[in-house]
Amino acid sequence: MERLKYGMVGGGPGAFIGAVHRAAIRLNNEADLVCGSFSSHADKRAELGAELGIDPARNYATFEEMAAAEGARADKIDWAVIVTPNVWHYPAAKAFLEQGIHVVCEKPLCVTAEQGRDLKRIADEHGCLFGVTYTYTGHVMSREARQLVRNGVIGEIRMVMGEYPQDWLLDVLETITEENKPWRADPKLSGRGAAVADLGTHIENWVSYVTGLKIEKLACNLDVFGQGGVLDNNVEALIKFKGGATGMYWTSQVAIGFDNALKIRVFGDKGTLEFVQEENNYLKVTLRGKPPQIYSRGAGYLTPEASKYVRVPTGHPEGLTEAFANIYKDFAAAVRDKKAGKAVNEEDYGYPTLQMGIDGVEFFNKCVDSSEAGATWVTLD
Amino acid sequence: MERLKYGMVGGGPGAFIGAVHRAAIRLNNEADLVCGSFSSHADKRAELGAELGIDPARNYATFEEMAAAEGARADKIDWAVIVTPNVWHYPAAKAFLEQGIHVVCEKPLCVTAEQGRDLKRIADEHGCLFGVTYTYTGHVMSREARQLVRNGVIGEIRMVMGEYPQDWLLDVLETITEENKPWRADPKLSGRGAAVADLGTHIENWVSYVTGLKIEKLACNLDVFGQGGVLDNNVEALIKFKGGATGMYWTSQVAIGFDNALKIRVFGDKGTLEFVQEENNYLKVTLRGKPPQIYSRGAGYLTPEASKYVRVPTGHPEGLTEAFANIYKDFAAAVRDKKAGKAVNEEDYGYPTLQMGIDGVEFFNKCVDSSEAGATWVTLD
Amino acid sequence: MERLKYGMVGGGPGAFIGAVHRAAIRLNNEADLVCGSFSSHADKRAELGAELGIDPARNYATFEEMAAAEGARADKIDWAVIVTPNVWHYPAAKAFLEQGIHVVCEKPLCVTAEQGRDLKRIADEHGCLFGVTYTYTGHVMSREARQLVRNGVIGEIRMVMGEYPQDWLLDVLETITEENKPWRADPKLSGRGAAVADLGTHIENWVSYVTGLKIEKLACNLDVFGQGGVLDNNVEALIKFKGGATGMYWTSQVAIGFDNALKIRVFGDKGTLEFVQEENNYLKVTLRGKPPQIYSRGAGYLTPEASKYVRVPTGHPEGLTEAFANIYKDFAAAVRDKKAGKAVNEEDYGYPTLQMGIDGVEFFNKCVDSSEAGATWVTLD
Amino acid sequence: MERLKYGMVGGGPGAFIGAVHRAAIRLNNEADLVCGSFSSHADKRAELGAELGIDPARNYATFEEMAAAEGARADKIDWAVIVTPNVWHYPAAKAFLEQGIHVVCEKPLCVTAEQGRDLKRIADEHGCLFGVTYTYTGHVMSREARQLVRNGVIGEIRMVMGEYPQDWLLDVLETITEENKPWRADPKLSGRGAAVADLGTHIENWVSYVTGLKIEKLACNLDVFGQGGVLDNNVEALIKFKGGATGMYWTSQVAIGFDNALKIRVFGDKGTLEFVQEENNYLKVTLRGKPPQIYSRGAGYLTPEASKYVRVPTGHPEGLTEAFANIYKDFAAAVRDKKAGKAVNEEDYGYPTLQMGIDGVEFFNKCVDSSEAGATWVTLD
Repeated sequence: MERLKYGMVGGGPGAFIGAVHRAAIRLNNEADLVCGSFSSHADKRAELGAELGIDPARNYATFEEMAAAEGARADKIDWAVIVTPNVWHYPAAKAFLEQGIHVVCEKPLCVTAEQGRDLKRIADEHGCLFGVTYTYTGHVMSREARQLVRNGVIGEIRMVMGEYPQDWLLDVLETITEENKPWRADPKLSGRGAAVADLGTHIENWVSYVTGLKIEKLACNLDVFGQGGVLDNNVEALIKFKGGATGMYWTSQVAIGFDNALKIRVFGDKGTLEFVQEENNYLKVTLRGKPPQIYSRGAGYLTPEASKYVRVPTGHPEGLTEAFANIYKDFAAAVRDKKAGKAVNEEDYGYPTLQMGIDGVEFFNKCVDSSEAGATWVTLD
Repeated sequence: MERLKYGMVGGGPGAFIGAVHRAAIRLNNEADLVCGSFSSHADKRAELGAELGIDPARNYATFEEMAAAEGARADKIDWAVIVTPNVWHYPAAKAFLEQGIHVVCEKPLCVTAEQGRDLKRIADEHGCLFGVTYTYTGHVMSREARQLVRNGVIGEIRMVMGEYPQDWLLDVLETITEENKPWRADPKLSGRGAAVADLGTHIENWVSYVTGLKIEKLACNLDVFGQGGVLDNNVEALIKFKGGATGMYWTSQVAIGFDNALKIRVFGDKGTLEFVQEENNYLKVTLRGKPPQIYSRGAGYLTPEASKYVRVPTGHPEGLTEAFANIYKDFAAAVRDKKAGKAVNEEDYGYPTLQMGIDGVEFFNKCVDSSEAGATWVTLD
Repeated sequence: MERLKYGMVGGGPGAFIGAVHRAAIRLNNEADLVCGSFSSHADKRAELGAELGIDPARNYATFEEMAAAEGARADKIDWAVIVTPNVWHYPAAKAFLEQGIHVVCEKPLCVTAEQGRDLKRIADEHGCLFGVTYTYTGHVMSREARQLVRNGVIGEIRMVMGEYPQDWLLDVLETITEENKPWRADPKLSGRGAAVADLGTHIENWVSYVTGLKIEKLACNLDVFGQGGVLDNNVEALIKFKGGATGMYWTSQVAIGFDNALKIRVFGDKGTLEFVQEENNYLKVTLRGKPPQIYSRGAGYLTPEASKYVRVPTGHPEGLTEAFANIYKDFAAAVRDKKAGKAVNEEDYGYPTLQMGIDGVEFFNKCVDSSEAGATWVTLD
Repeated sequence: MERLKYGMVGGGPGAFIGAVHRAAIRLNNEADLVCGSFSSHADKRAELGAELGIDPARNYATFEEMAAAEGARADKIDWAVIVTPNVWHYPAAKAFLEQGIHVVCEKPLCVTAEQGRDLKRIADEHGCLFGVTYTYTGHVMSREARQLVRNGVIGEIRMVMGEYPQDWLLDVLETITEENKPWRADPKLSGRGAAVADLGTHIENWVSYVTGLKIEKLACNLDVFGQGGVLDNNVEALIKFKGGATGMYWTSQVAIGFDNALKIRVFGDKGTLEFVQEENNYLKVTLRGKPPQIYSRGAGYLTPEASKYVRVPTGHPEGLTEAFANIYKDFAAAVRDKKAGKAVNEEDYGYPTLQMGIDGVEFFNKCVDSSEAGATWVTLD
């Protein structure tokens, strides 16, 4: 099988998520990092490029330069990975799409839904694939949840309870100064939403990905706790889905005792699913009138649609990196089919699509709109 | 120590909660059931009276008769327990208070806040004590939670997440007919709210009891799922407390896989408390920057205010009956002090007060108001 | 239904277990405590007798006096409860049996298996019933486990893993003096075994009660940790059952972090059961090739043999007191049948029998024998 | 930093563990697989070599050929990874050591302790490093446990309870034929022990690695359940450590409901540690008289010795592959130091050493000895 090639925008020394993307792709062992625009600091990008074995000629200063140069090469990258602060997602993605280069972009996709729709238009124009790394859809048990819903196991969905508390911001809040703040806490780099964009979109996406439900309207309260806070760090929303289901979403960056506790419960009229990201090797499945069951990743009773992502046997934990790797496995499969001239419907491959990225941006902006209007109900387009 | 005497209104054969009240009082072994008005069916009340060893002369046909007769006796009961369907709480409580007889009443206290305020007026007039059996405040670890908040252990409270899912109604919904429905599903017996009144008030009360927070306003969505449904069976609310804390409450009677899963998390700026009713022998306490700790009922590190309610050593489970018994232990202490002529401030004894009962009725009515107005924000008085 | 009458030997002021027995019987509300020999201290027994409303004429100084006096009364007690330190179980039980009075006795039944067999002979001679309060067999989910095994749900049993760690002794060890030590740490009051007798017999009994397996031989290591220790406080045993199943039992009083953590796992060739006493409202049931299931006390899918013991609905916790109460409910049923002249096979009623008591004494003595011989294998009779 | 090079013996197509080793090394991104002897089937090794991009000239037919050829190259591999069935560990390791090539070998190290001591002699002679992939020592929280013990946090160790149940063999047992059996069930490939060697040594090693305790003697019962069974599939052992601590080890391949549930509890006189492999991101730490605490991988309160292995932030799960990768990270560090001419004490690097491998082989052979002698006590050398 031909090895694929990719480049990365962002993910410089010390950036957590860029390193995870690279590790995940290495885990799959079917694509190599051959170029990048890792940092605006020349020394930092040189350092990382050397560490990663990047040809200095392909270690670019800017994404514009990278897109132009790669677009012109015969052996150009198969896709670009974008892991910059949020505000640069749009221009960077655009630059690669316009060169006909496929894109994988971190969430939130961009800052406004308009940008997202623009990216969609450009991607369609240039026949480009586009994946959005909503990580948690990559877990085997997320795939199992999705398939169980599709198989009708839990029946018609009535309620969805989603939460995603963290507490890492507490310490950061106390040390933030105007000069020294993380980009996630800086509206100029992060956009209008902080927790709601960074974490809230994960809930919104996981629910949408697994259940297919579309939000009709929402009422959202954003809190800014702590003296150093500028953007929201606690988010509470009532949700009404098209078709009559309802739900509540909560996310926080100041919830003491919670590390990264995405937990989603989907209630149907025949059964309930519960997924907890920190225990990603399990899925709780309860059918009406029966005792709760703990499904284990890798077990023989999983659906084939989920089992095909299993890497190590049941009881041998997989984690975050495998979730990312599964998304890249899907994406690479689409890239290969595309290169082979096959018709590619991105929704068939399993990775979160550009449309899901747009939905996420729409979601968090509507949350901010609602909160600014007193947590009143706003309708989604 | 003088044994006390009480009577019961409601709680006839087959009524679950009346039996629990009697068992709890027996557990304390300081009061005897001497009279009752258990049922509107003569044969049923005769049967139960015989089983319980009630003097037939004090086995009354109606609460009016019981209140009048007991009020006239020299050896009258020390208190009346009211465990009827909701709509009769008010008239029954009123009847005893007007005879100067203390009252313990099931929640929700009554159907309208006006009724509640009226009861308060009458109780004050007649110098009567009044307890409301919000059961879950009776658990040792609820007392521990309250004391930890009072001791400042978790600092200033920022968020409160409360949930209380059940699934028992699912089967019932399918068999409901106009002639045959449980009183909880019948507005004529239950009042305007079902899940929100029966379960939602437990969340509201536990939070208020433990944290002292008062709700300023709320936005509430009530769902009626299933074809047999008349009243709400799924409740989702955004909460804003006076002083800036916020929260979300969810309760449901159609959440498959959940038995009676009251769970409340209180987040302060110094720590977090988590109480799960089904695991009532534990309390999760996390201080900022430290690992989560699992406090165990009966352990030596509990506060004295909680430890005094411990009945059996740590690791030997207590349950629902002990929670009720603790409330009755508190109430009996107040009754004894009252009989001894001491000044009694009901808030000092630990049992949920009439004011808390009124707050609960106010809460669920405002939830219904909000939902009827499209889940818009309503302010509490 | 006629109310029954019982008396108690031991259980004076401050004695934990006597109070639990009395509370459990009150919970059932079918028998009254009418006499006792609570303490060797005259003032203590007077104090408790007054508190419990015992006729001073039936508040006896010794169990010998009590047995003789009650045996001579027309309205004598239906049974005697024996909750003294271990060494007095045998003479006290004997005294009542010889008066034709049924007995309920705490575990371990007595100090030597010979004593136990003697009690059996006397009980048979006098037609007396005899229950042993191995508490944990009283939990609803222990009954469910037993019935599932009987129904063949887990197939033929291969392995049994039992453990019962506590840590309460640690503090006690440091304050023990020759003059001041708890009776459980005093061979003169407790017998040859401490943890092995107090806790080990609970494992042995639960396994025997639920599975019907009989121990063929065992190898047991007893440890005495801590400088104040005289008797064993940590017990480790390999077990071989008749028929080929094997297992391991561990119990400890010095296992930091464990309150009262009896946990037993029974592995068959079709499935596995796991019972954890501290979570007594649940039973984990896993069938081969299927996800683990969490059975909940009170749920509709329980066997009728277990469901009949359910007191409060699923999700409303029951605990230690209910477990005791269930045993007394069984015992009272046998007493009533006996009084009604029916043929009574004690094994049909559900309470742990005298034979189980004897088996427990045999078990712990063999453990001590094994340990004294260097933890070599010893065969049970 | 110079990239390192390694080769692999075994790990052909379909072999689970070889793929995990390669993935783990890719995750670290500091060494490349450049040669191998993956399979005795020419087509299989050709297929895998092509997939992995191995130069066909370095895709060897046998480990003997590979050792000789690599030993002769100027650019020879830095180490060989041995992931064959057990019986070939010894000759393969020997072949590379004799060429002066460092070795990483799967556990159990070999079949007899004599072989192990021979490897030690040869490794010392040739100045070779030797790591044994006892995977579970690689988890961050295993490192945390080790450091907490070293820091005296739990005091002097009294008891160790280790268990490692699986159930995968059940299905295999039913399909085993003389012609078709997994190598783990074939004494000719696996050696005298199956579960005891494959799983039991993991318990033995983790305990030794974390606590430093040495086993003085043991009594072990091996069961062969199921009709297809030849070797042990259930292991129960009593352990006495040098210095007075005791313990019990249990492992099984027929324990329905357990995937890969290594769980070890270490009890000291000041505290207790509990590690559960399937929840490898957590460590339960209980100090005497305090509530149990749940330590989370990545949290700020971890020891520096453990924190340095953290790859992704707390709450973002790491799993099996990271555990392997950590061992390889340690090993590569030692290799680099060795190449740089530094004195290398292998015990300082963190990876499990050859001596630990020998201890494991000694352990499982003594278990088999004991079982064959009727589960009597045998002393370790």
